[in-house]
Amino acid sequence: MRAAIMYAAGDVRVENVPDATIVEPTDAIVRVTRACICGSDLWPYRSMERTDAGQSMGHEALGIVEAVGRAVTRIKAGDLVIMPFAYSDGRCEFCHEGLQTACVHGGFFGNAGFNGAQAEALRVPYADGTLYALGTGTDEALQASLLSLSDVMGTGHHAARVAKVGPGRSVAVIGDGAVGLCGIIAAKRLGSEQIILLGRHPDRITLGRDFGASDVVTERGSEATERVLALTGGYGVHSVLECVGTEQSMNDAVAIARPGGAIGRVGVPHYEGIPALPTFYKNVIVGGGPAPVRGYIDELLSDVLEGRIQPGRVFDHVIGLEEVPEGYRAMDQRKSIKVMISL
Amino acid sequence: MRAAIMYAAGDVRVENVPDATIVEPTDAIVRVTRACICGSDLWPYRSMERTDAGQSMGHEALGIVEAVGRAVTRIKAGDLVIMPFAYSDGRCEFCHEGLQTACVHGGFFGNAGFNGAQAEALRVPYADGTLYALGTGTDEALQASLLSLSDVMGTGHHAARVAKVGPGRSVAVIGDGAVGLCGIIAAKRLGSEQIILLGRHPDRITLGRDFGASDVVTERGSEATERVLALTGGYGVHSVLECVGTEQSMNDAVAIARPGGAIGRVGVPHYEGIPALPTFYKNVIVGGGPAPVRGYIDELLSDVLEGRIQPGRVFDHVIGLEEVPEGYRAMDQRKSIKVMISL
Repeated sequence: MRAAIMYAAGDVRVENVPDATIVEPTDAIVRVTRACICGSDLWPYRSMERTDAGQSMGHEALGIVEAVGRAVTRIKAGDLVIMPFAYSDGRCEFCHEGLQTACVHGGFFGNAGFNGAQAEALRVPYADGTLYALGTGTDEALQASLLSLSDVMGTGHHAARVAKVGPGRSVAVIGDGAVGLCGIIAAKRLGSEQIILLGRHPDRITLGRDFGASDVVTERGSEATERVLALTGGYGVHSVLECVGTEQSMNDAVAIARPGGAIGRVGVPHYEGIPALPTFYKNVIVGGGPAPVRGYIDELLSDVLEGRIQPGRVFDHVIGLEEVPEGYRAMDQRKSIKVMISL
Repeated sequence: MRAAIMYAAGDVRVENVPDATIVEPTDAIVRVTRACICGSDLWPYRSMERTDAGQSMGHEALGIVEAVGRAVTRIKAGDLVIMPFAYSDGRCEFCHEGLQTACVHGGFFGNAGFNGAQAEALRVPYADGTLYALGTGTDEALQASLLSLSDVMGTGHHAARVAKVGPGRSVAVIGDGAVGLCGIIAAKRLGSEQIILLGRHPDRITLGRDFGASDVVTERGSEATERVLALTGGYGVHSVLECVGTEQSMNDAVAIARPGGAIGRVGVPHYEGIPALPTFYKNVIVGGGPAPVRGYIDELLSDVLEGRIQPGRVFDHVIGLEEVPEGYRAMDQRKSIKVMISL
C-alpha cells in the first residue's frame, strides 16, 4: 500500500509500504477516505533529524473499517468511522472520565514509530474505544467537517472548555491556524459574543470573521496587549485560547488575560515555563493539553451533521495521496491553512 | 501608638509611631485586638534591604472599629471586625465576582509603605468593602479561629477550591505551615477522604493528622513523587494544594498531579516558570494566587462559630505586641508554626 513517510526536515515521500495488518485482537484496519496534514506535522517538517526508517505521518482520518480483530465487538467491517488523533481503550479510568488522551493503554498515530493516516490504510489499536462509527449515508459535503472532529475542531473546543468560555465572557483566540479558527467556532457555539482573533493572515482573518470573530488584532507582544485591553475596558479577556505554542504566544496569553480569567492551551508548548508571577497575581488559571477529541464527538457531531457549524471550511486545499509532499510545502509556506487528502 | 516596623532582614522593632487617622472619607480606624505573623512576612525578614523609613508590618487582624469616615455607611464604631489581608472597595466588577484581591482600588496591608496590623491600630481603606463585621459576644475561645479567616484559613480554602477538591477526589497538600494545615481543614471540609500531607516537622504533622490528613509523606523530590504515586494507584492525586512557593515545591506539585488534575497555588512564587510540558501532556490545570479571603468569610464563618473547624489551632504561640521581634525569631527558626499577637 502507499503511505507518506517523513525521513528528515523537508523530506516527505509517498512510498510503497507493507499492508497494514491486524496485530492485536483489539485492532481494526481502517481504509482511509479522508486524511489531512496538521499544523503539528510542521514541527518535525522543520526540525526532524534524518533517520533511515522514517516516520509514517498523519493522525487525522475518516475511513471505512476493512477488518477487525476477534476481540472487537462494537466496530465492524464496513463502518464509516472518525479516527481521533489518539488511540484509547475506552475502558480505563481516564477514558471513563473523558480524558482519552491520558488512556493508560493509549498513544498517538503517526508518531514514535506508529503508523500514520496519510496512507491508504492504517492499523488502529483498541478499535472499540478509539473509533467513532457514523451512520451510513453521510453527505459528501459533510466529509470535511466530520474529518475536523478527528482533531482540529475538538482541539479548538478543548481550548474553549478549559478557558471556561460561555455567555457573557469575553474571549481572545491566539493564532489564526486551523485550530484557532475552530476555537472561534467553539467560542461562538458556547455562547460568547466578544471573540477577539489575534492573527495576521488576511485569508484566515476573513474566515475567522465568518466563524464569529467580533474583533481582529494583527499586532503581537505589547502592542497586541494594548489593543486587547482597549477592547475590554482595560481589564483583558475572561478566556484565552492559546492555539500556537510559542513563548511569545504564551506570554501574550498571560498578558491579555483578565484577573480571574482562564487560559486554554492547545498549541504544543515550545517553551519551558508558564510565567509564574503574573498568572499568580492575577489569579489566572492555565490548563489544556492534548484534546480528548474522542470524548467531544458526542457533543459536536449533531451540530456538524445539521450544518450549524462548518469547521470543514478550514480545509482550503484538497489533494490526492501522491501529492502529500506538495501539501506539506503549501502549509509550510502558509499558502494553505489546512490541506485535506482525499483518497 | 505602638507598631512593629521592619528596617532590614532580621531587624524588626516595636516603636512609637503617629496615631492612625482617617485620611479618606471611606476609611475606618481599627483598634487591633488580635494580629499575627504570617509565613509571607518571613520572606522580607530574610531578605529585606535596609531602609530608613522601614515598613509597618502585618496584614491579618481582628479588631474593634474606633472611628469611621463620613462616607462609611455599613461599618460603625464599636463593631468587632475581621480585617482581610487585602483591602477592597466591595463595588467594582472584581469584588462583585468574588475576586476581591483584584479590586481596582485595592491593595495590601503592611506592604509598599501602607500601614500594617502588627500595631495598636491601623487605617483601613474602603471600610465598607474591606471589613467583615461580626456580631457582638463572640466567644474568647473563638478569637484565634476568627483571626485565621483574615488570611490562612481563607488561603488554604482558596487552594482547595482552585484545585477542585471534592468528594471522591484525592488530595495532596504540599507544605506543613499554617496555610498548608488550613488546606487540610479545607480539603476535609469539602469532602475529600484521601488527604496526603507533604511535610517534615513532627509537631505540624501531628496537627495535620488531627485536621484530617490520611497520609504523610516526609520525602521531597523524586522520592516524594514515588510515595504519592504509590498511595494513589500509580496515577497521582486529583488535587494538589501548593502552599510553599519554591521551585522545588512547584515541581513536586506538577509531578504528583494526576492527568486531568488541578493544582491550586497559594505560596507566593519564588520561581520563574511553571513547568510547561508536563502540565500540558497531563492536561493539568494550574491556578491560584492571592486568596479572596473577604469573599470566603461568608462560606466559612458558620463552621468556625459552630466549632466544626478549628483553624485557630495553627497558632501555637501567643505574645504581646512588644514581643513581636521574638515572634519573628520563633517563626524564622521554626520554633513556632504561627504566632498570635494579643493586645
